[in-house]
Amino acid sequence: MEMKKVRIGLLGAGRIGKLHGENLAHAVPEAALYAVADPFMNDATRAWAADMGIEKCYSDPEKIFSDPTIDAVFICSSTNTHADFILRAAQAGKHIFCEKPIDTDLGKIEEALAAAKKAGVKLQVGFVRRFDHNHKMVHDTVASGRLGKPNIVKVTSRDPDHQSMDYIKVSGGIFLDMTIHDFDMVRYLAGSEVTEVTAYGAALSGAGYEQYGDVDTAIVMMKFENGALGVIDNSRAAHYGYDQRTEVHCDKGCVQVANDLNDMSMISSADGVEIAKPTWFFLERYNNAFIAEAKAFVHAVLTDTETPVTGFDGLQPVKIAMAAAKSLQEHRPVLLSEIG
Amino acid sequence: MEMKKVRIGLLGAGRIGKLHGENLAHAVPEAALYAVADPFMNDATRAWAADMGIEKCYSDPEKIFSDPTIDAVFICSSTNTHADFILRAAQAGKHIFCEKPIDTDLGKIEEALAAAKKAGVKLQVGFVRRFDHNHKMVHDTVASGRLGKPNIVKVTSRDPDHQSMDYIKVSGGIFLDMTIHDFDMVRYLAGSEVTEVTAYGAALSGAGYEQYGDVDTAIVMMKFENGALGVIDNSRAAHYGYDQRTEVHCDKGCVQVANDLNDMSMISSADGVEIAKPTWFFLERYNNAFIAEAKAFVHAVLTDTETPVTGFDGLQPVKIAMAAAKSLQEHRPVLLSEIG
Amino acid sequence: MEMKKVRIGLLGAGRIGKLHGENLAHAVPEAALYAVADPFMNDATRAWAADMGIEKCYSDPEKIFSDPTIDAVFICSSTNTHADFILRAAQAGKHIFCEKPIDTDLGKIEEALAAAKKAGVKLQVGFVRRFDHNHKMVHDTVASGRLGKPNIVKVTSRDPDHQSMDYIKVSGGIFLDMTIHDFDMVRYLAGSEVTEVTAYGAALSGAGYEQYGDVDTAIVMMKFENGALGVIDNSRAAHYGYDQRTEVHCDKGCVQVANDLNDMSMISSADGVEIAKPTWFFLERYNNAFIAEAKAFVHAVLTDTETPVTGFDGLQPVKIAMAAAKSLQEHRPVLLSEIG
Amino acid sequence: MEMKKVRIGLLGAGRIGKLHGENLAHAVPEAALYAVADPFMNDATRAWAADMGIEKCYSDPEKIFSDPTIDAVFICSSTNTHADFILRAAQAGKHIFCEKPIDTDLGKIEEALAAAKKAGVKLQVGFVRRFDHNHKMVHDTVASGRLGKPNIVKVTSRDPDHQSMDYIKVSGGIFLDMTIHDFDMVRYLAGSEVTEVTAYGAALSGAGYEQYGDVDTAIVMMKFENGALGVIDNSRAAHYGYDQRTEVHCDKGCVQVANDLNDMSMISSADGVEIAKPTWFFLERYNNAFIAEAKAFVHAVLTDTETPVTGFDGLQPVKIAMAAAKSLQEHRPVLLSEIG
Repeated sequence: MEMKKVRIGLLGAGRIGKLHGENLAHAVPEAALYAVADPFMNDATRAWAADMGIEKCYSDPEKIFSDPTIDAVFICSSTNTHADFILRAAQAGKHIFCEKPIDTDLGKIEEALAAAKKAGVKLQVGFVRRFDHNHKMVHDTVASGRLGKPNIVKVTSRDPDHQSMDYIKVSGGIFLDMTIHDFDMVRYLAGSEVTEVTAYGAALSGAGYEQYGDVDTAIVMMKFENGALGVIDNSRAAHYGYDQRTEVHCDKGCVQVANDLNDMSMISSADGVEIAKPTWFFLERYNNAFIAEAKAFVHAVLTDTETPVTGFDGLQPVKIAMAAAKSLQEHRPVLLSEIG
Repeated sequence: MEMKKVRIGLLGAGRIGKLHGENLAHAVPEAALYAVADPFMNDATRAWAADMGIEKCYSDPEKIFSDPTIDAVFICSSTNTHADFILRAAQAGKHIFCEKPIDTDLGKIEEALAAAKKAGVKLQVGFVRRFDHNHKMVHDTVASGRLGKPNIVKVTSRDPDHQSMDYIKVSGGIFLDMTIHDFDMVRYLAGSEVTEVTAYGAALSGAGYEQYGDVDTAIVMMKFENGALGVIDNSRAAHYGYDQRTEVHCDKGCVQVANDLNDMSMISSADGVEIAKPTWFFLERYNNAFIAEAKAFVHAVLTDTETPVTGFDGLQPVKIAMAAAKSLQEHRPVLLSEIG
Repeated sequence: MEMKKVRIGLLGAGRIGKLHGENLAHAVPEAALYAVADPFMNDATRAWAADMGIEKCYSDPEKIFSDPTIDAVFICSSTNTHADFILRAAQAGKHIFCEKPIDTDLGKIEEALAAAKKAGVKLQVGFVRRFDHNHKMVHDTVASGRLGKPNIVKVTSRDPDHQSMDYIKVSGGIFLDMTIHDFDMVRYLAGSEVTEVTAYGAALSGAGYEQYGDVDTAIVMMKFENGALGVIDNSRAAHYGYDQRTEVHCDKGCVQVANDLNDMSMISSADGVEIAKPTWFFLERYNNAFIAEAKAFVHAVLTDTETPVTGFDGLQPVKIAMAAAKSLQEHRPVLLSEIG
Repeated sequence: MEMKKVRIGLLGAGRIGKLHGENLAHAVPEAALYAVADPFMNDATRAWAADMGIEKCYSDPEKIFSDPTIDAVFICSSTNTHADFILRAAQAGKHIFCEKPIDTDLGKIEEALAAAKKAGVKLQVGFVRRFDHNHKMVHDTVASGRLGKPNIVKVTSRDPDHQSMDYIKVSGGIFLDMTIHDFDMVRYLAGSEVTEVTAYGAALSGAGYEQYGDVDTAIVMMKFENGALGVIDNSRAAHYGYDQRTEVHCDKGCVQVANDLNDMSMISSADGVEIAKPTWFFLERYNNAFIAEAKAFVHAVLTDTETPVTGFDGLQPVKIAMAAAKSLQEHRPVLLSEIG
């Protein structure tokens, strides 16, 4: 490929679309962000696009798919459009970065993956946490083999505060909405596939999750093909900030990461000793990870190499989430092979 | 009770017996360690006893039970004698400190508890970790209510190295031998009873646990009466030292404790940054906790108040361990009510 | 002032000039980086400027001073040009951000400050560390008064590795080249002026500082007008990374900050426990501080308020550095009032 | 020497005497604490002695010096008796552990050291901090040479709260009373002798130190024979607890220790994140160090080897303290060679 920069069309200019847009414009030198399409295209978005140096603003995504000068698309639109946009981009021969989840229907995911594969285009799914310096350090240490084989994979993942019940109502439940990131993380850290899960969950906060059949607190145990065991604990509300810790205990030792903090201060007085809180939420914690993720996609396109988070990596966490939901409902261990 | 010091007879002068004996002799001012009985009484033990200021050395424990000047016994003999010694001490009207576990047979435990209750003597079971400054801090913070109700109770508990297979063969399995301390800990931290457990386990080390139907790695999820969820992860071999961390996530925040370290050093060079390892094993980590435990027992006797770890506290972890073993074997969640 | 964005000309496109240029272009929304002048203007710099959206590239700085559309300049050229450029910018009525030091001649500094004052333009000097989240936390805690008055102000400041002897030869000595940042920092943290310094220094590394009358290791004690005492320790070579810690001990307690680390990992094995190194050098450590600094300048211009680091703040550290050099040479405490 | 245990007479049964007595009785197996002498011998002390297994209680120290069965003395009496008791013990051929300082008169110290040397008895001075696990780790790392030569030796040493003014009045001033421990520490850590000091001091607390010509806050810089520089900062009042940190920056890296904490907890909520305070004061922080110190003395006696803290080690910190006081008074650097 004789390309110096990857020419990109952005699909969706909501919060996550703008985040990716700003990173592509300012922090990914090998990306040329050329066009944006959003069904609600308006003056504010056009002004933002101008600031980003984006030349074309559309409300119709087809304008992007049909533009032969565009090399790749960033699918940041609403979840229900992801699979269709993958199909369409694949047909148009464009490389694809798609936000998670691809879809919540396994058939549609598999159809989209097949289309991308057939078209020979790159596909990367937005599991951004893999690009966090902390979690990556855990992964790299395990992958190096210096600690031997993984025995226990642990993920603590707690959001700083409740989502609105309006959001929860349509979220698909904690496992598909929130734990899905952790299901990707355990696969990434263990270097192995999940074969079975058992999930416990409870609505403890009084915020009302139970009225939508959902929970605000969950623990999921899992088994991996390589024999390791895993566990994730989730809470919808850790009022001290975003609690995102990972740990892998191996044959010869353990690697773990603490949260990034707002600063490295310690204030000591007769009243006690205070240190800084964890960074507030994903925008603060994974800021640099979003940049690294976009760079990795652009790099894969430019060098014609495999993306670091494949379509298959987009499919598996959905399956695990479905198995966890089934486990919670049926109150028993559920094999991944029972899903789909 | 008009007593200035509690006059104590020590039953068993093995490793744990000598540990308690030294603490009673040197670190518990209100204890008067008067006699010791051990079936293998010999010159070395007599010399040790002399150093401790112990006046009487016996091979026959009956000499202690029948001595009307002795107020209380410390049962530190082999596990299979615990229940009988409790019965005998209760008959003799002596207060009882008993090392864990009371027994591995629920009927014998209940018989021993009934005897102590009927005799009106104090009974304290040796779950020493409750007296550790770290875990106590977690407990006290939760119990204070300042963080609201507990949602997630987490215990990481890993031994520094494998036991011999000769030991493992007769250990009763990981849940009764090792996790039993963690089952006590989760009850202590949650301030609530376990109602259900699901256990995962694996023999990953190659050390041979599987030949005795045992595992070296385990994760146990549990539910509590108060609605909280819990999880314990265990490994028989964390070669960096004794890994004993606890954490409770509550409505309004989270309290957690890291390991005690050998020192507070940091050595920085081009090669990296090193800090100290965790203290090696339970003798190093729980040294002060053993003293606090003995003081608490003596205090309960002198003030005629409830011991901080009761006979019931000795019974429940055995039941939970049995439920965990059943869960692992039958590959399903097991209710505590199914046990005993 | 009816201005939506501050239109900026950049003077100097070396390493620090490009750093500011990229921040102004990408991370300071209210800045419009319009022109750059560099005596060595070439194609590479023009290409960089194009990437940054800079419209005009000059080799003659006068093109910037004489452009009436330009509101402010960033002086990032070599130190010997700073004072002249401030004079020229002041004459042209442009607001001024100037990299440190303004000059190493007190007379020239005072002339420049007077010119800026007379012209009524903003002047901010590039003591970037004030904008670091860590040091700012120390400052803000002290300034809040919650810990009472400052008693001891401590700064540890060590570079990761030696500069070349070619650099050292013309650097002006450790106090003017390196400690000058720390002299600004102690004033910032103490909220008070330095009145006296005593300096110790030594060339211990064998790298050859002594042949230029310089040292690689220094400790400077100081007194402040408010009665507090201070101390700075410096090393040219801390091979583990950039060591930048500050601490203020006050009447009622102490606030201190540790270094930012590359990540929050801990790797534990039989070999020991490793944590991450501090970030490597100022580009890594003060990356966000450079952005905050530029934003603060632009904000002061737009709101017509005092800059957070004034011309006087640029002058004082030079005086303190001169006093420290005199103290080291004359082996005695030196009053600030002896300087200039 | 054919001795299984060292038979010890304790001189002085105040707070520090009782501390050593309890350690010798309970924690130093090779010590036999046989007698105690105190001018204020009373029933309470006799009861304490009985608890410790001490056979003889005297008000006259001569009873101890003249008892040929006693091998060694622990001098824990008031400072003004130390030098005389050393002389007397040396004459009587008894090994000597002496609390710091030996005296505040250099001539008397030298006379005492000469007597001990002539008599060929062991002499150890009570600089207990050398036996702290943290500071020892710094020392051992430096002494190992793995980080190259020491460049900067730093000691932070702050007491938790003010002493009474009655105490301060007769304390001899901050350098002889408090910093003397730090002067020993820097020699220990640097592995080299102090050649010069410059001291800054201030009375900032309002507690009244200035009325006795004393200060509550001090910073002392020093030079070492090996070329290294050093700095100590002191405060009489760090209300968060005993602040005792040491650090040595070397050619190839840095070793530092943080304070021991009451526990390893972290409590996170919307209000902030709290960790434990440092241990309160020297009894808490140096508890184990006192035991290690006594063991080291007994070991030196039993093995006829040099004590780890010699008479010379007792002399030097007094000289450094005098030089620091002179520096503060005369407002100039003072050479150690100017003292005595």
